[in-house]
Amino acid sequence: MDLALLHDLAQPNTTKIILCSLDGLGGLPRPESGKSELETARLPNLHALAARSACGLLRHVGPGITPGSGPGHLGLFGYDPLQHPVGRGVLEALGIDFPLKPGDVAARGNFCTVDAEGRIIDRRAGRIPTDLCVKLCEKLRAIAVDGVEIAIEPVKEHRFVLVLRGQGLSGRLSETDPQALSKPPLPVRALEPAAERTAAFVNQFVARARVLLKDDAPANMVLLRGFDTQPDLPLFPEIYALRAGAIAAYPMYRGLARLVGMDVLKTGPTFADEIATLRGQWTAHDFFFLHYKDTDKAGEDGDFDAKVAALERFDTHLPGIVALEPDVLAVSGDHSTPSILAAHGWQPVPALVSSRYCGADHTSRFTERDCAGGALGVMPAQELMPVLMANAMRLAKYGA
Amino acid sequence: MDLALLHDLAQPNTTKIILCSLDGLGGLPRPESGKSELETARLPNLHALAARSACGLLRHVGPGITPGSGPGHLGLFGYDPLQHPVGRGVLEALGIDFPLKPGDVAARGNFCTVDAEGRIIDRRAGRIPTDLCVKLCEKLRAIAVDGVEIAIEPVKEHRFVLVLRGQGLSGRLSETDPQALSKPPLPVRALEPAAERTAAFVNQFVARARVLLKDDAPANMVLLRGFDTQPDLPLFPEIYALRAGAIAAYPMYRGLARLVGMDVLKTGPTFADEIATLRGQWTAHDFFFLHYKDTDKAGEDGDFDAKVAALERFDTHLPGIVALEPDVLAVSGDHSTPSILAAHGWQPVPALVSSRYCGADHTSRFTERDCAGGALGVMPAQELMPVLMANAMRLAKYGA
Repeated sequence: MDLALLHDLAQPNTTKIILCSLDGLGGLPRPESGKSELETARLPNLHALAARSACGLLRHVGPGITPGSGPGHLGLFGYDPLQHPVGRGVLEALGIDFPLKPGDVAARGNFCTVDAEGRIIDRRAGRIPTDLCVKLCEKLRAIAVDGVEIAIEPVKEHRFVLVLRGQGLSGRLSETDPQALSKPPLPVRALEPAAERTAAFVNQFVARARVLLKDDAPANMVLLRGFDTQPDLPLFPEIYALRAGAIAAYPMYRGLARLVGMDVLKTGPTFADEIATLRGQWTAHDFFFLHYKDTDKAGEDGDFDAKVAALERFDTHLPGIVALEPDVLAVSGDHSTPSILAAHGWQPVPALVSSRYCGADHTSRFTERDCAGGALGVMPAQELMPVLMANAMRLAKYGA
Repeated sequence: MDLALLHDLAQPNTTKIILCSLDGLGGLPRPESGKSELETARLPNLHALAARSACGLLRHVGPGITPGSGPGHLGLFGYDPLQHPVGRGVLEALGIDFPLKPGDVAARGNFCTVDAEGRIIDRRAGRIPTDLCVKLCEKLRAIAVDGVEIAIEPVKEHRFVLVLRGQGLSGRLSETDPQALSKPPLPVRALEPAAERTAAFVNQFVARARVLLKDDAPANMVLLRGFDTQPDLPLFPEIYALRAGAIAAYPMYRGLARLVGMDVLKTGPTFADEIATLRGQWTAHDFFFLHYKDTDKAGEDGDFDAKVAALERFDTHLPGIVALEPDVLAVSGDHSTPSILAAHGWQPVPALVSSRYCGADHTSRFTERDCAGGALGVMPAQELMPVLMANAMRLAKYGA
């Protein structure tokens, strides 16, 4: 689907769309019962909604490809994730809600331990506690490099984010982590001529960090990986002519929504808070991206029963969303996280689209198995947004 | 699906994959019963496997397009057949297990009958018996052309294969067959400047053949068609990081497997021999392409009952395959060969994928009709390989 075409066809309306992303929604049957998490959970509200919706399965990147959270959400937002890769440093920065600007170069950093000869003996510095990471990041903020602005933010344990801001920077840089012990950290090399200046900035930073941290064993050195600049994405509100608001308790998803130009709405830490925000902001936006994290967390933990419980909790919140009477309500996810995998999976993700004009199918239960036979078919995730736009009467006819 | 992306994501594992291709698998209902071959056959093992598999339909080239054996198998192996055409001369050479090398130019040859003025009166030389073809090919081997190596191999009846080997050859040549009677064979013309030298070699060969065969009526001349070089395909074992073995009793399928770089395993003429080879080679490979020919043969003969019987024979062999406990077992085919067509058809082909992580669907019978509602959907055949790789836990996550 060509985003320029969608932009040409997008037309204003007063209709409202809610896209509800249950993170890691899709699952797999547990061998003992032969039933998946969705098939095991008591979900009266979701099943009733599915019965009056068009259902299907979404595939976010390609057949057999397990999406990370970045590609998964870009797919939901209508972008082809293969055409818009998001670098790991950028994702790490988004994950702590760092206000990245176009042109910024971000990298994943971690503290490590080196011996007297500077050779790495622990790539994660014994996973130092987060409060020590915070202190060491403050220390590193003393480093100034001429010609570039440097930001350092702690993430968790030994991990931090490095962001360079300035004119003409490039993220095409090699990593300093040799991915092996008993070797010294590598200097950063430019992977394109335009990155020479940026490489020099980073190498100056690392040299200064080495000196500053020399007495801080086990965290006496830094490693930098995943350099990248923010991808230059066409902006969601412009493509679709929508006032788009994102409601997400977790910073990563706020970051991804900000990346595509959505307004990130202030909300609290619970899903009840998110729904309160949705209600409070109802008149101010046309499109709401509403993120539910608990399903993914339980799946990643390999906790089938917790994922069932997370689905049931979502189900109890669903009437509060339906009560707002959006013109279009979609429920899906950014990828599968089957509990029996305890990780993201490649399995396509159930999706439903409910509207006055969504059409009917035989699907009356919101499960992987039932959605496979739905009217949406098995479709690339990036095709969902045009379907939502159409159901909201926000796409003009193509051709006469 | 980009093969380069798959190559990037492919990661080693100890898992085993079997891809079982039932040649010409798909069929159509017989008007008398309204049931297809798969719906008529007693297939307890296949249906039981389908019940615990993800099912779907594969389309090998495009909607409504009937695949030849070459494109059909390239699709199963994960290649887009439209991007990797295999010339007819190359297919004919693969079909007799000719050890083609990169750069070889192959053509389909046939003996024909010409009158005293050299005009064609029978394009197939009365379909001479194969043993005469063998003798005439021996005779043609006496022809030497300076600057190029020439190989001639009999195929069947009036058909033979011509292969040119040497530096800088090109397969971009016109055909000598005027496709009409009462006309003389055409000289070969170069279709690109780089083919001038090859055209001259071929024309020298044809001139010599004319003289050698002049007293051998009805087989007193040759026609050459379908010139081509072996396509330069990315190699299957490299793309997928798999030790891939091909088990096929028929030379054509061994040839296609060799073309993509699989190890062709020595086997006997029956499917029982093939399964014995599978068992014997089990530890030496990660991926097995297992080919079953009988279904296609019966379909091509228009023999509905024989195709039913061929399916039932396969079904009795299936437990021997399942007993090896592959991590991933897929059953599908390279194209349909509906008995009521007595030819290859464009109808999408049933497919099943069985693994611990394949997910569930409502399909409990392995038929065209039932697979249409399965979790795999109706998908391009080249998307099967990434799904098998994912189920074998051999693909890394895309993006963070």
